[in-house]
Amino acid sequence: MDDLGVDVLLVSLGADLPYLTGYEAMPLERLTMLVVPRDDEATLVVPRLEAPRVVERPEAFTVLPWDETDDPVGIVAKLSGTPGVAAIGDRTWARFLVDLVASLPGTAWRKGSEVTSPLRSVKDDAEIRALRRASAAADRVATQLQSGQIPLVGRTEHEVSQDIGHRLVDEGHVRVNFAIVAAGEHAASPHHEPGERVIGRDEVVLCDFGGTMPDGYCSDITRCVWTGGEPTAEMRDLYAVLQDAQAQAVDAATVGTPCEDVDGVARRLITEGGYGAHFIHRTGHGIGLEEHEDPYLVGGNCERLVPGHAFSIEPGIYLAGRVGARIEDIVIASDAGPESLNHVTHDLVVVDA
Amino acid sequence: MDDLGVDVLLVSLGADLPYLTGYEAMPLERLTMLVVPRDDEATLVVPRLEAPRVVERPEAFTVLPWDETDDPVGIVAKLSGTPGVAAIGDRTWARFLVDLVASLPGTAWRKGSEVTSPLRSVKDDAEIRALRRASAAADRVATQLQSGQIPLVGRTEHEVSQDIGHRLVDEGHVRVNFAIVAAGEHAASPHHEPGERVIGRDEVVLCDFGGTMPDGYCSDITRCVWTGGEPTAEMRDLYAVLQDAQAQAVDAATVGTPCEDVDGVARRLITEGGYGAHFIHRTGHGIGLEEHEDPYLVGGNCERLVPGHAFSIEPGIYLAGRVGARIEDIVIASDAGPESLNHVTHDLVVVDA
Repeated sequence: MDDLGVDVLLVSLGADLPYLTGYEAMPLERLTMLVVPRDDEATLVVPRLEAPRVVERPEAFTVLPWDETDDPVGIVAKLSGTPGVAAIGDRTWARFLVDLVASLPGTAWRKGSEVTSPLRSVKDDAEIRALRRASAAADRVATQLQSGQIPLVGRTEHEVSQDIGHRLVDEGHVRVNFAIVAAGEHAASPHHEPGERVIGRDEVVLCDFGGTMPDGYCSDITRCVWTGGEPTAEMRDLYAVLQDAQAQAVDAATVGTPCEDVDGVARRLITEGGYGAHFIHRTGHGIGLEEHEDPYLVGGNCERLVPGHAFSIEPGIYLAGRVGARIEDIVIASDAGPESLNHVTHDLVVVDA
Repeated sequence: MDDLGVDVLLVSLGADLPYLTGYEAMPLERLTMLVVPRDDEATLVVPRLEAPRVVERPEAFTVLPWDETDDPVGIVAKLSGTPGVAAIGDRTWARFLVDLVASLPGTAWRKGSEVTSPLRSVKDDAEIRALRRASAAADRVATQLQSGQIPLVGRTEHEVSQDIGHRLVDEGHVRVNFAIVAAGEHAASPHHEPGERVIGRDEVVLCDFGGTMPDGYCSDITRCVWTGGEPTAEMRDLYAVLQDAQAQAVDAATVGTPCEDVDGVARRLITEGGYGAHFIHRTGHGIGLEEHEDPYLVGGNCERLVPGHAFSIEPGIYLAGRVGARIEDIVIASDAGPESLNHVTHDLVVVDA
């Protein structure tokens, strides 16, 4: 905050609050907000009826409950003093920022992530171990997928998605964050919503799933399988380009490399393979207490990787109306080189399931 | 927007977007935003990779996808023109509002709910039917609870919470929004997080649960049961006061009554019963596409009930460290009088489960 000239940091919903306090706020119209003045003690302003759930840590913050007819924004504004610059947590609801802007005239507003991302995006050893455990749990489900233990043919995408979700929980997650299952032509929509489409023989099934572990850290993996028979020539060609691009992007994710250059490696190889127009998203996102957080591997982000950065590398190729594929691992940047946390094969496994 | 002098309405996360467009945005760092200028056509700005999920309705809005290296805030700002007053959706992430404030200097910012709540809080006949179906589904689970079909004694709160969640889905919900199970002294914490506490004989179990139906409308109900034997004298006294207060608050929720007066009825009766200091939250909240929305039945809200307002009436009494209780129904205000949508008994049923 000193470096950035931020006088007060105001944190509400999202992972910044549990990262700083151990307490996660429910997404409610009743405001929960941690007020962190640059030169004073931190206070957690919390609705009276949520207060029993908070574990106060006096060395870090004190708890100030507010009652149902109090004005919590007024309380936060008073605790904030008259800040020249205030940083507001990225996922705070706009309704509270609108009221805060009115309550603190003359204050310049910045994003809370300017303060918290440099802390959260660089994982320490305990966090890296947590991410390894999360990826290992996701790997076990991916292994079940690739070995044919998850029935596919004849079930709907939705059924398989539910099945994968249950398996994520069985393997140690406490929450399923998503379980995309996209068959055939649906694999061409990167964020396809699994529906009533029945999976058939001789087609691709793209599965992208992840969840949150008991310690709060997340997994995220994508694998594609082919349901029996020989993949089409189009699929084999596309997949070979993709597999090479993913692997080379991982190799490129060395300490000191700008994030956008990692994206650039995957994009160049896919373009050279003839599919440049069909790689319609960035190469990856940071991961930790949130599924998507800094750093983002995207054109325009010239931030350089440092040891402890954790992120996905997940190029994809999408031929609208026909077919698509994506391969995704979680990777840690370290002085010893990029470390993939997912270890199941990247091949397009043909399953009889 | 004419009445309020709002030049542009900007809608992102939350229920306003599906209410207006039929499309629900995922909570992502990639901006999805509906731009509704007062005097021009509406545009849905959406990440390219989400665009396949949007069903465009040209009579209502057109879709404008943005690519990974575009600046979506810049696109929204351009579509907004130079608004004197802009209203921003209540649940929009602050990070986007911070950027919009910088992109639209001189604009005054208001809450989107000022525009949308007067529309959303007054339910039409189809919405009231949807809320009846949601409450009927929750009632079926409450009946299972009261009839002893849900095992309690010897299980943890967490296990019972998971069980209730599964039953909500079995009865027609697509999503479980919460399933509070609070045993004995835990019932004194209104938003208790169900944990490893094992439920015993001769104690209260407070269950507050709700979910979302396939059409997007929500249920929310609270019932307390007693696990065998005779409730203690303290519990019987407390519960009689509570039951009377809840019933009379429902009766008071007539068209034309200020919201705070309904709260006042429950609060006066609980205070007269000797528990005023232990009723630590408002009497209720509106419900519809969100579990909590306008109107709120709380001191200070002098808005008057109109036909079609839908809300919970849920007073509670909490004796810290000992015991607590809450009774909650969903109620519709109508010219024929208040209509409770929940029909299972309000009695403190003794269950042998």
